[in-house]
This record gives sequence, structure tokens and C-alpha cells, in this order.
Amino acid sequence: MNQFCEKFKVQYPIIQAGMVWCSGAKLAAASVNEGIIGTIGAGSMNKDLLEQHISKAQSLISKNQHLLAVNFPLLYHDIESQLKIALDKGIRIFITSAGSPAKYTKLLKDEGRLVIHVCSSTRLATKCEDAGVDAVVAEGFEAGGHNGRNETTTMVLIPQVVDHLKIPVIAAGGIADSRQIKAAHALGASGVQIGSRFVTTKESSAHPDFKQAILNSTPGMTKLLMKKYIPVRLLENKFSQSIIELESSGASKEDLTSFLGKGRAKSGMLDGNLIDGELEIGQVSGMINEILSVQELAKELKSAYTNKLTG
Amino acid sequence: MNQFCEKFKVQYPIIQAGMVWCSGAKLAAASVNEGIIGTIGAGSMNKDLLEQHISKAQSLISKNQHLLAVNFPLLYHDIESQLKIALDKGIRIFITSAGSPAKYTKLLKDEGRLVIHVCSSTRLATKCEDAGVDAVVAEGFEAGGHNGRNETTTMVLIPQVVDHLKIPVIAAGGIADSRQIKAAHALGASGVQIGSRFVTTKESSAHPDFKQAILNSTPGMTKLLMKKYIPVRLLENKFSQSIIELESSGASKEDLTSFLGKGRAKSGMLDGNLIDGELEIGQVSGMINEILSVQELAKELKSAYTNKLTG
Repeated sequence: MNQFCEKFKVQYPIIQAGMVWCSGAKLAAASVNEGIIGTIGAGSMNKDLLEQHISKAQSLISKNQHLLAVNFPLLYHDIESQLKIALDKGIRIFITSAGSPAKYTKLLKDEGRLVIHVCSSTRLATKCEDAGVDAVVAEGFEAGGHNGRNETTTMVLIPQVVDHLKIPVIAAGGIADSRQIKAAHALGASGVQIGSRFVTTKESSAHPDFKQAILNSTPGMTKLLMKKYIPVRLLENKFSQSIIELESSGASKEDLTSFLGKGRAKSGMLDGNLIDGELEIGQVSGMINEILSVQELAKELKSAYTNKLTG
Repeated sequence: MNQFCEKFKVQYPIIQAGMVWCSGAKLAAASVNEGIIGTIGAGSMNKDLLEQHISKAQSLISKNQHLLAVNFPLLYHDIESQLKIALDKGIRIFITSAGSPAKYTKLLKDEGRLVIHVCSSTRLATKCEDAGVDAVVAEGFEAGGHNGRNETTTMVLIPQVVDHLKIPVIAAGGIADSRQIKAAHALGASGVQIGSRFVTTKESSAHPDFKQAILNSTPGMTKLLMKKYIPVRLLENKFSQSIIELESSGASKEDLTSFLGKGRAKSGMLDGNLIDGELEIGQVSGMINEILSVQELAKELKSAYTNKLTG
């Protein structure tokens, strides 16, 4: 039982990550019911849909309502309405990302909520602490989806961030099994955030064909692309190959955004367009070989905590 | 005492990495004298110089001569002469890299030597095992100097390689302190190879200005560049900035090799040209804050092994 566990009132310091198109009410509630932090990803929801998912999750949770979290990419156009809904619905854990931690942390803390901000460098981690967050998620280069620019890996990032901060550091990126959880704690983390492994659970809303593509993938089949725009780690397909070719020939940010267009992520991950859709997943994709229920997965992940926690 | 320790007759499964321009006789001998594997980097030596360094190292080693290793990039033009010299001088541990493990492993094994091959993917690791090596070094994206193409990080690579092989796996990339050593073992590694942290030891032959540049560096100041040629992780300077600009504008392999020219690595690392030289170092550069003797560093690294080893 470390400082993070005490503050967040959680037995196992595991966060099921909020993810676009994959983590709705069903996944978050199933995670909470296993005694870990379950997160709804607001990034792919308008405010009405977010309200529905929060209500549904709350109705599906049998105990530990305090472990339900929502992840908010702060650059979202209607972010203030989203935050208001989560506040009104009694959400206790706010995980913020993709924006300045200085902007909403005080407002949320004044409302008595717990705030975690996602960062990918010691510089941003220090800003998070200064802004008054309760913990940071430090996310390495190997993570799926949107990612930092300095490409620091989890192995290097975590000890650096731990050395720079006083608040708890949650490790993310490259964590999919109990060995990687133990490694994260050896590096000084107080807990872990896991995304990709939850994408292939039964309760995830990812399209079955996307889940199968992850199971079929082999090591080395993801790449961090679109570094001139917003870096994002994608599974290899026709779409990602086109991006690689564009980048190799010196395409500008404008060329990339024009090719990207709208709705690629929904098309790939929710609708299962494996050819032209954007398939966001971490490097651990090549290690994932089965579709489990959240209950089965949580059991394996919790087995990392048979010994006393450090960090 | 795990399988690797038994086979290599080493108390602490730590390898001081062979590196161009930094790891000559003095560094390797100092490492061996601390009871870890000390490696001469043959990649920056012609055969006469290699012979001198091996002889000198042997004369500086007070005990554990069997822990002296030489690292051979197999693409080196005079590789067979180099291997012959090391065989004649009684070197017991051959660490090979940058080439096929199938080419010389049998020859070296027939001579009764121990062979370790460096790999950066499960695919190559499997080829190493098939070729009959005694162990592999699996090196992640965060490592300094020349690097693999699939960008898999240590956190993700090690469990994957461990799951694919029967022989011991040594973790490399992103390992500079005892926390990272413990993390590597949690991932299933049987030992660690450490490069960058040894570059700044007193006994390293790196130029003092290069050592100071590493101490001055902050997190995020290295980048993996020249992916169209041979990927290499470099510390930020005028030279690396020029490469980034060339790559961003779509430069070809020929453009890159022409700009690179000859002698950049020697100029940067041995002669201390911090502006136009190539400064090979890992992401841990931003964590290195002091120049220690090998004895002082080895003491800190060995402190990771206060508990029983796994893997």
C-alpha cells in the first residue's frame, strides 16, 4: 500500500487507460468491478454521449464507484462542457492530457476531485506538479496512440521523472503483463496505466476485426508516425504505409493533415476498416495473443503484486 | 547465480559494453577487475591496435582474465584478421554484432569460446539461438550508437525475446543505474549490458569534452537518426541538427552518406569536436551527472543484486 494507493483508495495501483473508441462504460465499469481504476475515454465522445457512458458505467458498477475515472484530452473543442458533465455526475478521478495542466487543475481541485495529468517528459512532469495535480502518468515512446515528441522510452523516462517529482508517478507505455508491471515498480513508479492490453478484452468497444489484427500482429509491427503533426503510434496497414512513404519523401504538416482527412481513427478502431483506417496501438501489440475478459486479465495483472510494493 | 552467471563464471551478470572510441584496454581491464565482464570495442581499431589493446588489458587485469571480452561488428572489412588475433590472444568471450550470427559462431564455438550476439528483434534473436550462440544481448531503441530498425524498446523487447528463446537474454538500452538493472531482471533478463554510463567513467577513452557534454545534457537530448542508412542514436549538436533537417526534407540514403563523410565518430567522441562530430550516446545521457571511476560505478551497479536473481 503506497502513497498513490492511499490517496486514490485503490488496492492495486493499476489504471485501465482511457482510449478513443475502445474504452466506454462497459470496459471502465468492468475494470472498476475488479478493484482497479477504470477510465472512460472522453476524447471520442460529444458531451451527450459522455453523459450516457458515465451514467451507464455507474449503473454497471457494483462497488468502488470512487474508482471510476474519465480521461479528457484538453485540446478537445468542447472540453469545458465535458468537464462540467463529469463534475455534475460525481466523477472523482480526472485524468487530463494533451494540453496544459495549469488550465483546469485548480478548478478541479477546488471541486474536491483527484487530478492526474499525462506527460512524456520531465519538463512537462514538473509543470504538472507545479499545477497541483495529485499524480502524473509518465508515458514512454512505446505507448500506443498519441505520444510525446522527445521519444523517451519508459525505461529511461520513469526514473528521470521519479527523481524530479515528489508526487506519485504512474508508468505507461510498454506495460501489458505482470513482468512489465514489476519492472515499472523497480524503476520507481507507484503504479501503472495500461491501454493496449485492454483494447483486446471482451468488454472493449474496439471492432472485433481490430482486436483480431492485434492478435495477428508480430513484434515490430507498430511505428510512431506523423511527427510533424501530432505523433501517433499505429499498427502497420495500408494507411500507415502511405504515411511512411509521404514522410520519407519530405511531406509537410499540411500534406499529412490533408491526407489524414477526418474520421480515420473511428473508421479503423470502431468500424474495423483495417485497410484505410487508423489503428492506434502500442508496441506490446506483438505480445498480445488472446482475448480475455477484464476479470481474467485483471487476475493476471494483479499477480504482479504478490510482494510488497515499492515506490 | 543464474544460468548465465554459471556459464560465464561471473558473479554479477553485468557486461561493460564494447563501444567505438570509448572502450579500450583501460576501461575493459578496470571492469574485469571489478568482477564484471569488461569489453574492448574492436569496431574502431585496426588489427594491430586491437592486438595492443588486448595485450595491455591482459597486463592490467589482476584476476578473472576469463571475463575479458571483445566486441566485433561483423561488417568490419578486416573482421577475420581481428577474430584471429583475439583467438590467438586467448580471449574467451566474443561479442558479435552488426552481421549474421550464422557466419562465425560455429568457428568460435569449435575453438571453445563463448559467443554472445547482439540483436534488436525477436526474429534476429531466434537466428542467434539457431546459430548456437551462448547468449544474446537484446538491445532496445533507447540504446546509444548503432541501433535496430524496428524501434522496439527495452521494456517491450526483453519479455518478447525471453519468451522466444531458451538461452539467456542480456538486456541493453536504457540501463544506467541499479533501478534499471532490477527492472531488466523483472522483465526476464539474465543480465545487463551497459554502455553509456561507462562512457563517462574516468577509465573511458572518450574525450573529456564529450564526457562533459553528456553531463550537461538534459532528458530528451538524443535522437535516433539516419534511419535510411544505418540508424544511430546521437546527442544533439550542430551535426545532428543538420541530419534532422536533411531527413525532414526527404534526403536519400546517398545524400545522408555523402553529408556524413568519413571520421565523424572519431572526431566527436575521441577528438572532442562537439560541433561537427558524431556523438553516440543513449537516452540515459540525461540521467548521467557525474564522472566516476569504474570501481565507484561498479559498486552502485552491483547494489541491484542484494536480492536473489531471477531469469
